[in-house]
Amino acid sequence: MNRKMIFYVVGQIIKLEALLMVLPMACALIYGEYRTLLAFGITVAGALLVGCLITLSTRKCDRTIYAREGFIICAFAWIAMSAIGAVPFVISGDIPSYTDAFFETVSGFTTTGASILASPEPLSHGALFWRSFTHWIGGMGVLVLMMAVIPTNNDRSIHIMRAEMPGPIVDKIVPRVRNTATILYLIYVVMTFVLTLFLLAGGMDLFAALTHAFGTAGTGGFGIMGDSIGSYSPYIQWVLTIGMLVFGVNFNLYYLILIKKFKQAIRSEELWVYIAIVVISVTVIAGNIASMYPTVSETVRYAAFQVASIITTTGYSTTDFNLWPGFSKTLLLMLMFIGGCAGSTAGGLKVSRVVILGKTIRRELKVMIHPRSVPSVKLDGKRIDDTTKNGVCSYLALYIIVFAVILFFLSLEPFDLETNISAVAACFNNIGPGLSGVGPMANYSAYSAASKYLLSAAMLLGRLELYPLILSFSPSTWIKK
Amino acid sequence: MNRKMIFYVVGQIIKLEALLMVLPMACALIYGEYRTLLAFGITVAGALLVGCLITLSTRKCDRTIYAREGFIICAFAWIAMSAIGAVPFVISGDIPSYTDAFFETVSGFTTTGASILASPEPLSHGALFWRSFTHWIGGMGVLVLMMAVIPTNNDRSIHIMRAEMPGPIVDKIVPRVRNTATILYLIYVVMTFVLTLFLLAGGMDLFAALTHAFGTAGTGGFGIMGDSIGSYSPYIQWVLTIGMLVFGVNFNLYYLILIKKFKQAIRSEELWVYIAIVVISVTVIAGNIASMYPTVSETVRYAAFQVASIITTTGYSTTDFNLWPGFSKTLLLMLMFIGGCAGSTAGGLKVSRVVILGKTIRRELKVMIHPRSVPSVKLDGKRIDDTTKNGVCSYLALYIIVFAVILFFLSLEPFDLETNISAVAACFNNIGPGLSGVGPMANYSAYSAASKYLLSAAMLLGRLELYPLILSFSPSTWIKK
Repeated sequence: MNRKMIFYVVGQIIKLEALLMVLPMACALIYGEYRTLLAFGITVAGALLVGCLITLSTRKCDRTIYAREGFIICAFAWIAMSAIGAVPFVISGDIPSYTDAFFETVSGFTTTGASILASPEPLSHGALFWRSFTHWIGGMGVLVLMMAVIPTNNDRSIHIMRAEMPGPIVDKIVPRVRNTATILYLIYVVMTFVLTLFLLAGGMDLFAALTHAFGTAGTGGFGIMGDSIGSYSPYIQWVLTIGMLVFGVNFNLYYLILIKKFKQAIRSEELWVYIAIVVISVTVIAGNIASMYPTVSETVRYAAFQVASIITTTGYSTTDFNLWPGFSKTLLLMLMFIGGCAGSTAGGLKVSRVVILGKTIRRELKVMIHPRSVPSVKLDGKRIDDTTKNGVCSYLALYIIVFAVILFFLSLEPFDLETNISAVAACFNNIGPGLSGVGPMANYSAYSAASKYLLSAAMLLGRLELYPLILSFSPSTWIKK
Repeated sequence: MNRKMIFYVVGQIIKLEALLMVLPMACALIYGEYRTLLAFGITVAGALLVGCLITLSTRKCDRTIYAREGFIICAFAWIAMSAIGAVPFVISGDIPSYTDAFFETVSGFTTTGASILASPEPLSHGALFWRSFTHWIGGMGVLVLMMAVIPTNNDRSIHIMRAEMPGPIVDKIVPRVRNTATILYLIYVVMTFVLTLFLLAGGMDLFAALTHAFGTAGTGGFGIMGDSIGSYSPYIQWVLTIGMLVFGVNFNLYYLILIKKFKQAIRSEELWVYIAIVVISVTVIAGNIASMYPTVSETVRYAAFQVASIITTTGYSTTDFNLWPGFSKTLLLMLMFIGGCAGSTAGGLKVSRVVILGKTIRRELKVMIHPRSVPSVKLDGKRIDDTTKNGVCSYLALYIIVFAVILFFLSLEPFDLETNISAVAACFNNIGPGLSGVGPMANYSAYSAASKYLLSAAMLLGRLELYPLILSFSPSTWIKK
C-alpha cells in the first residue's frame, strides 16, 4: 500500500478546492457580501496551508499506484473535499450547524441536491454560487479535473479515474489518461457554456443562469428559489428539461460526435434504451396526470420535466409531484433507481447496467430452454466478457444490501415507510427530493444529526459507486499481504 | 417439444387433485355440511372426467422430457390445479365470486396465505379444511407428490422436480428421483403428524390441530379464526413458532439426520445463517417493541412468533404488527425478501441465495484489492460452479424486474405506496399479510378483480421461482428449433 501517494493526491485535491473557491469569493465581492467573502477567504487560506503541508511532507514518494490506491484516493479525496467545502457555510452564518453544512456540501459534490434548507432564498449570493458550483465540480469528478489541470506523466492514474467515473466499463477515450480527462472536461465546459447562453436568452440574469447551468450540467438539482424551477417561464423549463437529458448521456458519445464518428455514436444501445425509457415514461405520466392540469402542453411540460429530472437524478421540480397519483409516483420511484447513462454526470444504477442485466437474464432463459446452446451477451455489437457481467451482477447485489442497511438504520426515525424509503432512494441515487416527508416541497431538516451523516454516507456511496468507500473502510484492504 | 407428455402429466395432476378432495369431502360429511359435500362431489366428478379424458387421449406418448417440458408441466399443472381447486368454494357458496375463490386457492397452493376474507369464521368446515389442506399440498409440491405416489420408471422426471422445488441447487438426495420424492414426502408427513400431536396436547380440537398443522407445515398461513393465532394460548403460539422455523429448514438436512450423517447436516452454512438471522431479528425487534407489552416473556413471544412467521413466509400473526414502530416494520419487510431455506416449504429469495450473493460480493471485493488473486466461492466447503453463481445473480435481477413490473401495474390502484409495495412483497414472497392496507388485520378484498389476478400471478411466480411461468408464456419456448 502506497500510503504516501494517497496523502499526496488528497493534498493536491485540497489545494485545488481552495483555488476553486476563488470563484464564489469573486461572486461575494461583486454582491458586496463581505461576511461571505471573509468566510471563503479564511477557508481558502486554511485549505491552502493544510494542502501544502500534506503535499510537501509526502512529495518525495513513489508515484506507483494500483487499483487499491485508486479507490482509497477517491474515497479520501471526496470526504476531505466535503469536510472543507462545508466550512464557509458555517463561518458566514449561512448554515450555522456544521452537520447541516456538511450534509449540504456532500449533497452538492455528489450532485444529489438534497437540502436541509426550507428555502435557499435567504442564503447569500456567494453561498448560493458555491452550493451550485459544487454540483458542477462533482458532476464530472474532481479527480478527473485534477488530472486535466495538473501536469503528470503517470498513466497509472487510470486507476483513480476508474474509481471516480460512474458506469460498469470505464476506459480511456484516447490512449493517455491525461488527454482523456482534458477532453472530457473541455466538452463539459463548452456544453455548460452553451446551456448558460440558452438560459440568458430566456431572460435569466447571469447569476441565475450560471447557478442553474451548474446544477443542470452536474445533474445536481440545487436551485436558488424556494419552489425550485416552478416560477420560471415555460421556455426556461424546456431548456432545462433538454439540458438535463443531454447531460445524462455518456460523454464518450459527444467525443465520438466531435471526431465525426457518428455511426459509432448512433450505435450505442444504452442511448436508445435511455431515450425509450424517457419517451415512454413521459407519455404514461402525462396520461395519468392529464386531469390535473388545464392544457395538454402544460401537462406534457410537467411530465417531461419531472421525468428528465428524476431519471438524470438531478432533482429539480416544477410542480409538487408528491401530489400526483400513486401510479406516476411509483413510476418516478423506479426511474430513481435506473438513473442516467454510464459516463455521464447522472447517478443511479445506470442504464447500461440495466441493459446488461436484462441481456444476462435473456441469455439465462435461452440456456434453460436450449441447454446445449451457448449464447453470448453483447453490447453495442461487442461481446461482454465474464468479468464485466459478473461485476454488474455483484454490483446489483451489493447495491441492494447497502440500500437495505441504510434503510434499516434510517427507519429508527419516526417517519413513515414512504418517507424513509424514498429518502434513501433519493440520496443513494443522488437525486435529491424523495416522496412524502422529503418530497419536492419538503426537505431533510427533520432528520437527526446521526441520520444526516448516514444519508451523507449514502450520497457518497451512490456517487462513487460503492467500492471506493467500502474498500477504504474494510480492514482487509489495509492488511499487508 | 413433447406436447402430449405435458398434457398427460397435467391430466394426472388433475386426477390426483380430485382424489385429494376426498379429504375435505369427508370433513364436510362429519360436520353434516351437505351443501359443501355436494360442491366437492361435483368438482371431484368433473375433475376426474376431465383428467381421465386428457390422460386417455395422450397416454400413447413418448415419455421423454427435457428441462423445457419440466418447466411447462410445472406451470400448467399449478394453474390447472388452482383453477379447479377454486370451484368448490363457488359452488358451496363459501366464496361466491370465482375471482376471489381463485385468488384464495392460488394463495393456498402457493402457501401464501393472503386472503380476500375479512374473517374465515363464517366458512364451512369442509371449505376451511380444503383451504388449509391446499397449503400442505403446495408446500412440498404437488408434482413431487405425484412422483411419490404414481409408479413411474422415468428418471427424466428430475426436470419436473427441479422446476417445482425451490432453491438455487436442486438435486436428488438418493439416486432415483422417485425414491427422493417418497423420502421427502414421508419426512413431511411424519413431521406434520408430530406437530398435530403437539397441538392436540395444547388442548386444540382435532379440526383446529389439523388445519393449523397443514398451514404451518406448508408455511402457508391460512387460519380458521379472525385474529389468526392471537386468541390461542402461549403454549400453542410457541409450538407454532418452533413449527414454522422447523419447516423453514432444508428437508435434505432432515434426511441427513435420518441416515445419521449428523456432521454433514450440522455443516450446512445456510442453516447457521438462517438461525443467526432469526436470533438477531427477534432480539432487535423485542428491544424495539418492549414498551408496548407488559412482560418480557410476552414481548419475546410476540417478536419470535412474527419473525418466524415472516421469515418462513407463513404469515400467521398473534398481534397486529402493523402497529409496531417503523424500525420493526422495516426489519420485517426485509425478512419478507430473504425467506426460508432452499428445499423447505418456505418462499422468498431463500437464505442460500443470500449467502451465495454475499460470498460473491466478498470475492469481487477481494479481487479488486488483489487483482491477481483468484479466490473461489464456496458453500458448505464445496466450490460453487459458475453456472450456479451466475444463476443466482440473474435470478436476483429477474426477481427485481418482475417485482417492479407487478408493482407498476398494481400502483394503478388508489392505495398508498406502503400498501402496494407490501402487497407485492407479501404475495410474491408467499407470505400473506403485508403492511398498512393489507396488514395482518386487513385483507386483499379491496383490490379490483384485475389486481387480484395480477397478485395471483405474483404468488405463482414466487412459489415456482419465476422460470416455469415466464418460460411457459414466452413465445420462443414454443418455436421449433
